[in-house]
Amino acid sequence: MNRGFLSVGSANRDMKDGGSRATRKRQAGERAAEMATDGDVVGLGTGSTAAYATEALGAAVATGHDITGIPTSYHSRAVALDAGIPLTELDAVDAVDIAIDGADEVVDGDLIKGGGAAHTREKIVDAAADRFVVVVDDSKETDVLSHPVPVEVVPAARPTVMKTVRDMDGEPTLRSAGRKDGPVITQHGNLVLDCDFGPIEDPAAISTALSTIPGVLEHGLFVDVADEIVVGGPKGVQVRSTR
Amino acid sequence: MNRGFLSVGSANRDMKDGGSRATRKRQAGERAAEMATDGDVVGLGTGSTAAYATEALGAAVATGHDITGIPTSYHSRAVALDAGIPLTELDAVDAVDIAIDGADEVVDGDLIKGGGAAHTREKIVDAAADRFVVVVDDSKETDVLSHPVPVEVVPAARPTVMKTVRDMDGEPTLRSAGRKDGPVITQHGNLVLDCDFGPIEDPAAISTALSTIPGVLEHGLFVDVADEIVVGGPKGVQVRSTR
Repeated sequence: MNRGFLSVGSANRDMKDGGSRATRKRQAGERAAEMATDGDVVGLGTGSTAAYATEALGAAVATGHDITGIPTSYHSRAVALDAGIPLTELDAVDAVDIAIDGADEVVDGDLIKGGGAAHTREKIVDAAADRFVVVVDDSKETDVLSHPVPVEVVPAARPTVMKTVRDMDGEPTLRSAGRKDGPVITQHGNLVLDCDFGPIEDPAAISTALSTIPGVLEHGLFVDVADEIVVGGPKGVQVRSTR
Repeated sequence: MNRGFLSVGSANRDMKDGGSRATRKRQAGERAAEMATDGDVVGLGTGSTAAYATEALGAAVATGHDITGIPTSYHSRAVALDAGIPLTELDAVDAVDIAIDGADEVVDGDLIKGGGAAHTREKIVDAAADRFVVVVDDSKETDVLSHPVPVEVVPAARPTVMKTVRDMDGEPTLRSAGRKDGPVITQHGNLVLDCDFGPIEDPAAISTALSTIPGVLEHGLFVDVADEIVVGGPKGVQVRSTR
């Protein structure tokens, strides 16, 4: 596995004390950015840790390196434009060489994403990548996935999806918008149901069951998609292969 | 299984010669409408054969019967409004008692739908119904499903879904709009890929595989959803249970 060309990390990356959570996120993001190489098409993830990776890639572009980005969300596009990374789209490239994205919760190679309701496009880009690198601080690691799973549904299917999730022993909650009346509306015009299954012993089974409910566009369980996990912790950054 | 209260069929329903294809469709639609009973919430399907059922239900409403409809598409809503059927939505009812919908191709209880690109909402309503009745003329019956499967995808996922469908030995074609430049855009703002798998020996496997591709909202394979098939043929109408 290539080590990448970039060396944009902060000087204190190998220090024993990982410092604040923001520091851990930054160190993980910068380490993941180093995995990209010249000429790569890079999926640019969503969230604060992935944003550090995007900023590090932007710094590499500024010094003459050749990186093209594909954003996974409105926010990651804004960060990438700000960082000066040339952008493209999935239909304009032959392949996505690497995607670097965050997670709300990680167990081995399985994740839950979607706190930002961007998980549909994230999954499209992350799953398309030849190599998918997850960047998190150590607070996101756990023994068993138990975060509520965000499920993006077309508005007409809200009642029937909620019923089916309850049949699966999940508790669905329609995500309310914080700063407008009514629910969150996604980039695709859909709703988000945060579905609490408690501890998820069999993520693959829940993932397939959710995918096959009529009216579900995409859910936030990412099963067996990640190739590497880059974790920022108190003792610095750890990189683990999930393969 | 109740026979229903309505008797709105044309006088020649039991004639030996089913006449034209339009006659066969009308007879099948009217027979399916008879399966509804007073007080029922009825899913109103899309397409010419289902429209005959909706018109027959409208005739029953006009004579004082109590039917409430839930349309499955823009077109079925227009037909229902024209027929004078009171309408509601999934979130306003406890249950859908019966859904009556057409199909592009039928084998036993499995169908392919989506020629009209309305299959997402059709599947939501049809799957929600306690009893799902399929109405077709006999030209829609076959030995093995082989019609291209319409797959509704968010625009960003078009290239990756096409690649995955090809990996599944399917041949995807982006559906072009007939009367505007570019592709068909669905009610949800998405694209439709007509995916030709040739003869589909294992509809359940293809169905699950399509559902789990990131960016796929819904596809036109309806597996093990139909409870009864009402077929208009040259010798009149046949009703078959698939259970």
